[in-house]
Amino acid sequence: MEITKIIDKKSKKQKLSKEEIEYFISGYVKGTITDYHASALLMAIKLNGMNKDETFYLTNAMLNSGKVLDLSNIGFTVDKHSTGGVSDTTTIALVQICASCGVKMLKLSGRGLGFTGGTIDKLESFEGFKTEIAIDKCFELINKNGACMVSASKDLAIADKKLYALRDTTATVESLPLIASSIMSKKLASGADAIVLDVKYGNGAFMKTKSSAIKLAKLMVDIGTKAGKKMDYYIDNMNEPLGYNIGNKLETYEAIEILSGKKGKLYEVTTRLASKCIALAKNISEKEALLEVEKVISENTALEKLKDIVASQGGSLELFDGLNLKPNYKIFAEKDGKLKKINVNKLGEIVGSMGASRQKLTDTVNYDIGLKTFHKLGEKIKKGDLLFEIYAKNRAQALKFSQAIRDCYTF
Amino acid sequence: MEITKIIDKKSKKQKLSKEEIEYFISGYVKGTITDYHASALLMAIKLNGMNKDETFYLTNAMLNSGKVLDLSNIGFTVDKHSTGGVSDTTTIALVQICASCGVKMLKLSGRGLGFTGGTIDKLESFEGFKTEIAIDKCFELINKNGACMVSASKDLAIADKKLYALRDTTATVESLPLIASSIMSKKLASGADAIVLDVKYGNGAFMKTKSSAIKLAKLMVDIGTKAGKKMDYYIDNMNEPLGYNIGNKLETYEAIEILSGKKGKLYEVTTRLASKCIALAKNISEKEALLEVEKVISENTALEKLKDIVASQGGSLELFDGLNLKPNYKIFAEKDGKLKKINVNKLGEIVGSMGASRQKLTDTVNYDIGLKTFHKLGEKIKKGDLLFEIYAKNRAQALKFSQAIRDCYTF
Repeated sequence: MEITKIIDKKSKKQKLSKEEIEYFISGYVKGTITDYHASALLMAIKLNGMNKDETFYLTNAMLNSGKVLDLSNIGFTVDKHSTGGVSDTTTIALVQICASCGVKMLKLSGRGLGFTGGTIDKLESFEGFKTEIAIDKCFELINKNGACMVSASKDLAIADKKLYALRDTTATVESLPLIASSIMSKKLASGADAIVLDVKYGNGAFMKTKSSAIKLAKLMVDIGTKAGKKMDYYIDNMNEPLGYNIGNKLETYEAIEILSGKKGKLYEVTTRLASKCIALAKNISEKEALLEVEKVISENTALEKLKDIVASQGGSLELFDGLNLKPNYKIFAEKDGKLKKINVNKLGEIVGSMGASRQKLTDTVNYDIGLKTFHKLGEKIKKGDLLFEIYAKNRAQALKFSQAIRDCYTF
Repeated sequence: MEITKIIDKKSKKQKLSKEEIEYFISGYVKGTITDYHASALLMAIKLNGMNKDETFYLTNAMLNSGKVLDLSNIGFTVDKHSTGGVSDTTTIALVQICASCGVKMLKLSGRGLGFTGGTIDKLESFEGFKTEIAIDKCFELINKNGACMVSASKDLAIADKKLYALRDTTATVESLPLIASSIMSKKLASGADAIVLDVKYGNGAFMKTKSSAIKLAKLMVDIGTKAGKKMDYYIDNMNEPLGYNIGNKLETYEAIEILSGKKGKLYEVTTRLASKCIALAKNISEKEALLEVEKVISENTALEKLKDIVASQGGSLELFDGLNLKPNYKIFAEKDGKLKKINVNKLGEIVGSMGASRQKLTDTVNYDIGLKTFHKLGEKIKKGDLLFEIYAKNRAQALKFSQAIRDCYTF
């Protein structure tokens, strides 16, 4: 086989075989196939596409480039994946809900980069919370608490990591088969028996339209099903932040509020996703699962579960006593109006650049930095209403970003 | 400017600006833009195309990446370019014809690679012929003989050299704007005032169809015209070798035969191209130019010109006394038939791999190796007719390739 011929085939819109795709991925990981071969092929895939079979072969080749976790000794496990958004603290609440309902989860998460936050950063705002835990210890924790939340191991789907870094700099991220195979190779490597996908669309999400989000979700469900997993998906829009808070500690606190029963869009999405996880694990209807979900929230079982898990992983429980942060600056409405549009992406970027997220992976984050919002799209606002609370390093930083934050709302 | 955004634009079928194209080329030559950025962009260009303006900007950016020759002190000069073929020794004959008619040429040529021969290799089959000559010495020779035939300088269109090597290994050669800008950047750097393009199509040429050859020719004429050059083109087919001989010394000898008046397809193409060169230089019609061409051939002026030029550049005149080579093996027709198809590409490849050309640029060539053919497409052949004479290293090599050579003819 020759990589130049494989690139040529895809550039002529021909289908690649399983063997050709495996040759590409294994050669790329070994280094016998160079970055410039890979980027040419990725561009050909972005422009000419891949069918479902090719996408499945690519996913499997990437999956097999690294370690694949075997969770069989802890019984049936479920995983949830979100394509990422702003003020999306679903995971932290969902894991406790599922565990409280007897559904086991080994939740592997990442850190924030750019405009999206990362669950690992949010968890670390419980002071002392450990996210680097050996797999045997994870199994112990799951047997004890029903779940465990840790950093994704670096040796899963190695090819995906190398390819993603290349895609990021060669404008080849936006491709359904490449996105689907990237996500699914990591999810399949994590070893769960069932996977629920949370695919977002809108101006704060990677997918801009609902139809493209559905297409991506269905492609990933197809891959997971072929790999023998139980699959489901949920589509929700990111034309506004999911919750009200943006920033690590603020979002973690909002997860505590959700588990305490605070209603709203974040509550709705979290409980729907949890119901899907439970339905798959228990072979019951989503409706039945939702009743279980509502019960563990209203009876505070899920909130107590979060406390148990945080304590088991070495984290401080201080945040459960209340949010001990003060805003440096508040922004009020200058006139009456109706909230017509929110630049979600920009809001995420601003908070990230204030120090809540990273520009590059080696940056450190400040858990206390963030932003509180108070309104959802379509709400009527009166002059003088509080629009934002800025939690910055200091008042000067808050002032510096205040106009840009204000500009993210269109009335 | 950011290369990732430029790649993204082209991947979305958007037009690149002059500044973006210049940023890409200068960054790529400096090394601030990597091979993997370039190959992704090249693939996007291959698949999404470039319009005439973009192609002109790309040509200019590559042209300006190296030295541009200034031939103004030797007066009006003409250049000819062929897209390459098998048994195409046009250049060696054409330069003498033009020089004999008072049309000046600084002919820069390359070496053979793969299935196509190179004029420089052919010229070196005149023992002692020098092809590496300093530019001032070239001017002297042109003033004396009207022409000079030398190796293309390595410092012309530097970006094109670097890009071409990358295209070759990333399946991005087949792209009209990339082919056109590659050829034209080198031609414009060579400094001639008029350029005649010989664009070939067919199974022995890069362009497979006549319409694609015409498209490429017109695109290059557009670029040259925009750059202020007088332009013309000629389309001819490569479904059979242009002449009868393949291999360096054999082809050089065929050029001598053409200048001695031997008619056929190679004579036809050579005289048509020479007429176009002369017509552009003298502002006369092609018909008038053709009369001049036929005169310098019939009166042996052009043949004498070749002797003068070979002698001036240090070459032996021995070949003018006759071809001193003997075939190692002859192939005869096994039955009656009509020559229906010739696998020209394959014939070129076989002769190349026998040692007449290079697999990589550092290989050496054997000037004596080659093949003589005796028929053109459509000719009736009788059992026992001589089909090929093989000029190999030895009889064993000739025997080894004889069946493959025979298979290139379909009756």
